[in-house]
Amino acid sequence: MYRGGYTGRILRINLTDQSIKTEPLPENLARSYIGGAGFGIKLLFDEVKKGIDPLGPENKLIFAPGPLTGTSVPCASRMAITSKSPLTGAVGMSLTGGYFPVELKFAGFDVMIIEGRSEKPVYISIKDDSVKIRSAEKVWGMKTTDTQQIIKNELNDQNTRIACIGPAGENLSRLACIINELRAAGRKGLGAVMGSKNLKAIAVRGSGSVNIASNEKLKTARDFMAKEMKNSPVLYPQFAKLGTPMVVDALSELGIFPGKNYGETGVFVPVEEIGVKTQLTRNMGKEHCYGCPVGCSQLKLAKTGEYAGIMSEGPEFETMYSFGGTTGVDNIDAIIAADRISDELGIDTISAGVTIAFAMELYEKGIIDKKDTGGIELKFGNYRVMVDMLRLMAYREGFGDVLSDGSKKAAERIGKDSYKYAMHVKGLELPGYDVRGAKAHGLNYATSYTGADHNRGYAFQEIFGIPIPEPVDRFSIKGKGALTKWNQDVRSATCDAPTMCAFLLDMAVPAVATQNTSNLLEAVTGLTFTPDEIEKVGERMNNLARLFNAREGFGRKDDNLPDRILTEPIKNGNSKGSFISRKELDTMLDEYYSARGWDREGTPTKAKLEELGL
Amino acid sequence: MYRGGYTGRILRINLTDQSIKTEPLPENLARSYIGGAGFGIKLLFDEVKKGIDPLGPENKLIFAPGPLTGTSVPCASRMAITSKSPLTGAVGMSLTGGYFPVELKFAGFDVMIIEGRSEKPVYISIKDDSVKIRSAEKVWGMKTTDTQQIIKNELNDQNTRIACIGPAGENLSRLACIINELRAAGRKGLGAVMGSKNLKAIAVRGSGSVNIASNEKLKTARDFMAKEMKNSPVLYPQFAKLGTPMVVDALSELGIFPGKNYGETGVFVPVEEIGVKTQLTRNMGKEHCYGCPVGCSQLKLAKTGEYAGIMSEGPEFETMYSFGGTTGVDNIDAIIAADRISDELGIDTISAGVTIAFAMELYEKGIIDKKDTGGIELKFGNYRVMVDMLRLMAYREGFGDVLSDGSKKAAERIGKDSYKYAMHVKGLELPGYDVRGAKAHGLNYATSYTGADHNRGYAFQEIFGIPIPEPVDRFSIKGKGALTKWNQDVRSATCDAPTMCAFLLDMAVPAVATQNTSNLLEAVTGLTFTPDEIEKVGERMNNLARLFNAREGFGRKDDNLPDRILTEPIKNGNSKGSFISRKELDTMLDEYYSARGWDREGTPTKAKLEELGL
Repeated sequence: MYRGGYTGRILRINLTDQSIKTEPLPENLARSYIGGAGFGIKLLFDEVKKGIDPLGPENKLIFAPGPLTGTSVPCASRMAITSKSPLTGAVGMSLTGGYFPVELKFAGFDVMIIEGRSEKPVYISIKDDSVKIRSAEKVWGMKTTDTQQIIKNELNDQNTRIACIGPAGENLSRLACIINELRAAGRKGLGAVMGSKNLKAIAVRGSGSVNIASNEKLKTARDFMAKEMKNSPVLYPQFAKLGTPMVVDALSELGIFPGKNYGETGVFVPVEEIGVKTQLTRNMGKEHCYGCPVGCSQLKLAKTGEYAGIMSEGPEFETMYSFGGTTGVDNIDAIIAADRISDELGIDTISAGVTIAFAMELYEKGIIDKKDTGGIELKFGNYRVMVDMLRLMAYREGFGDVLSDGSKKAAERIGKDSYKYAMHVKGLELPGYDVRGAKAHGLNYATSYTGADHNRGYAFQEIFGIPIPEPVDRFSIKGKGALTKWNQDVRSATCDAPTMCAFLLDMAVPAVATQNTSNLLEAVTGLTFTPDEIEKVGERMNNLARLFNAREGFGRKDDNLPDRILTEPIKNGNSKGSFISRKELDTMLDEYYSARGWDREGTPTKAKLEELGL
Repeated sequence: MYRGGYTGRILRINLTDQSIKTEPLPENLARSYIGGAGFGIKLLFDEVKKGIDPLGPENKLIFAPGPLTGTSVPCASRMAITSKSPLTGAVGMSLTGGYFPVELKFAGFDVMIIEGRSEKPVYISIKDDSVKIRSAEKVWGMKTTDTQQIIKNELNDQNTRIACIGPAGENLSRLACIINELRAAGRKGLGAVMGSKNLKAIAVRGSGSVNIASNEKLKTARDFMAKEMKNSPVLYPQFAKLGTPMVVDALSELGIFPGKNYGETGVFVPVEEIGVKTQLTRNMGKEHCYGCPVGCSQLKLAKTGEYAGIMSEGPEFETMYSFGGTTGVDNIDAIIAADRISDELGIDTISAGVTIAFAMELYEKGIIDKKDTGGIELKFGNYRVMVDMLRLMAYREGFGDVLSDGSKKAAERIGKDSYKYAMHVKGLELPGYDVRGAKAHGLNYATSYTGADHNRGYAFQEIFGIPIPEPVDRFSIKGKGALTKWNQDVRSATCDAPTMCAFLLDMAVPAVATQNTSNLLEAVTGLTFTPDEIEKVGERMNNLARLFNAREGFGRKDDNLPDRILTEPIKNGNSKGSFISRKELDTMLDEYYSARGWDREGTPTKAKLEELGL
């Protein structure tokens, strides 16, 4: 049935009984969900029962590249990892690029499902059809770079690609991520799910290739996309040179680069210290994901003080925010160090930094003191404390244990008024946009099926001023319900499912995203979708994820924003005075639910589900 | 002419004019010097002029595997790197194993000579005959693991093997080493020579193989060697499981595990804390060099406190001594961390630790104080200071700059009585044997052409009680002159030249070492040597190295031992009361020179040189 793009096979590995099975990919899956996160959400919904412990053997980890992965389509090196998130209890989906996803396709799999729980630490090795569960005794406890190297040595294959967890995942930190090379499937604690299964790593190498339905159509589709990429005023001229960290300057100008746990946005604006000009003094060169002509990933080297010589791939913008702006740290070398240390420990930089910033505010406000922190001076701007805290969190040592599961759970343990300063939605810490000055972006945080997640419905209209589908006022709530639906559905369908790099959508093809995906899918897979049908797949994904979350008890009450965003205006800068009032959020939610065809409680209506075939 | 073993080619790379040449290996070289360090010494003597600055463009770096490297002979994965040492001013020769040397042979080279100095940071890539000098801009400043990975990525070849320097080499620390994977060509500051040439790394990959003169003879020779290895009571039963760190227990029992800069040997004996029993709690598994059935290299993981999660290949025994015994540190996790940090910085663990221990004694004795150290409490046992000091030394920061060039130069800068506590010979810091209780070992330190170097004439007779060529009393000086000559010549000829792992000599074939080498060389190369002729090659190497050093002004006055060894008896334990008196050293030197056929000043006589064809 599959003419191209798909291998047609699911690899299912049960760590409890050590069984390894190959199953055919169900025929309807590709048509309805394309791949990647689409497959992830569908399989999670079907296979993971209500109410299970995300860190128990009943949870599953679903790795899914997309139909374009491993083809000559640029920017399609990615895969989605989907699970029930131990951080939020909702759908946990995180994407990562590099080379691992491509090797999984080359090995012959569209999906890999990991089930159960091994008694002892193991890793999985995949070489085409040879799939083995091996003892991880040699690497258990190791950081991620060492883990990858030692497994390569043990398999006597330096070309194998490895996704693994570090100490944070082993210690079941709900902020733990999954690392391949120096890239992270960062958010929602998926590393803790691996850790809970006693699964240290997955090594994969494939010798196959991906069939193409029509090489001629593919050439046309690629040319179309390449032209859009070339015409982008941002993609090659700026983004390819600077990568995401250039956003520090842009957001500072807009007045929405979060400062000191959002208490000093527009006041603490370290653009001189960690903005583009300073970043360039630390730049070493770029790294490329498989088949990517852009290469946004920048290697940076810490150059002064105690962190000199520490190299990081990144830090990406989000990390500049989480270890920079929101912790009040303006030491670029400490941020670079913290980024690399996080990758080695396997802990999510956004959630870790935001959780530390939360604790810093509690400390400065006197809600916690040295007795609580074990003597640590958790003050804003104290970069040594920020760096050291990462290790304590990954190892659950001392006060690190309190922060190890993120700001929501930390606030529950600390009590008092601390919840007011915990910057999360549904347990997922806020990314680096003060949404008081970007309200569709805020609505997306409130409604994304993964919690506060910039990547599930990025409002590039507000952040970069791109007037597609139309110009917007970032301070206004007008039309933001429908806009957020569009942002979420298009993102899901054109990035998360096929799987394509999201930067392409934001920066190169926003006006023609669904057309572009339609072109590429037809060329590669032979399946035809109209642009509207593409968007509909995104809608289906968001609805099914919503149903999963509803089954877990989530509803309108959880489509919320942190107290501070709803009550406290930004103090200074170009977004001074702005906030999202409770009433504004409610209005936006009403409009959003209405645009989605959901009822007032945010539950998908029967009509909508039928329309989507759910 | 070369029937096997040799490729017959020298690769010569001049970094000043960027020229790359291939030259034939001179016909007489193999017969007279076998390979490895033999070639290194000969080429250094012929090509490097008297009095040049070791860190100037006139110095050369000579990489030479041996004729057995890359064959099926076990334990022959090694290469010698020879240069004029910036630490001693004498011949600097250091060996390393792993995979790099084999790849160099497979690429078609017996020797690689690096000359001159590049204007900008570069690295060399070798893929068979394709040799290129490339910009190292992307990796300059990086630590060694990152350097290797990023170069592999840049070359798009994960199977390339890389030798490189870290920050210590870039900053011209005379303690800098050359790292391949996590292995070091550790001693004599060869990393600084690379740094002075602006050469960050050499990447090599070969697709060839090494010719064998007689496969039939090789089978016989290998069987002979394998039988000796199997019969060793130590090699497989103990050494393969524990590696070199097992020596901590053995030396502690003998009372010669150096304690606190040799001031407390036999008093500070941390065998419980860092001996075999505790080591086993940190063992993760082993790593093998190319073609080695033993796999002595142990991976260790720091498990407690602030260093938890740091993995090291090693620490080898010498590092247990230099970061343990002699610094008074008994924290095994700190030692593991210091070992890895040293590998990443590219600094020699022995010299770095011994230099730190020297500074600790000065601090405790009040010869230096906090004003000198910049506030650092350089006390024995202060493991944090020990670990932190490594970075300061590699970066020449603060007091680290004073220690960065080793104990001899540090004593010159500090002045006062400090020289009394500097534990070095000819500038090279002492390895981990308190030679006051092992006098042939001490005589070797005094006379080795590289300075205090256990590996140039290891007195296994004293250390392990092996009665070959005859039993010895380690406290006596009787016969130690001739014994040291034998140890040095046999070591040079059977390990450093062919090139073979020295552990084989010490633990498996001491009784038949020259016969074994003769067998293997004939089988592989077709060249026939009697066992005596093999030993003669070793003698030739030691004489020619002596001539090089004499040309640089070295003589009897430099064949010395540290003050403390000559004047202060060991205070406690099974070597209590022992030391090497000035008179004993003089007597041993007389006998040694006489055994060597040198005059009373230690100058090789004309007759001896003629006998050796020099």
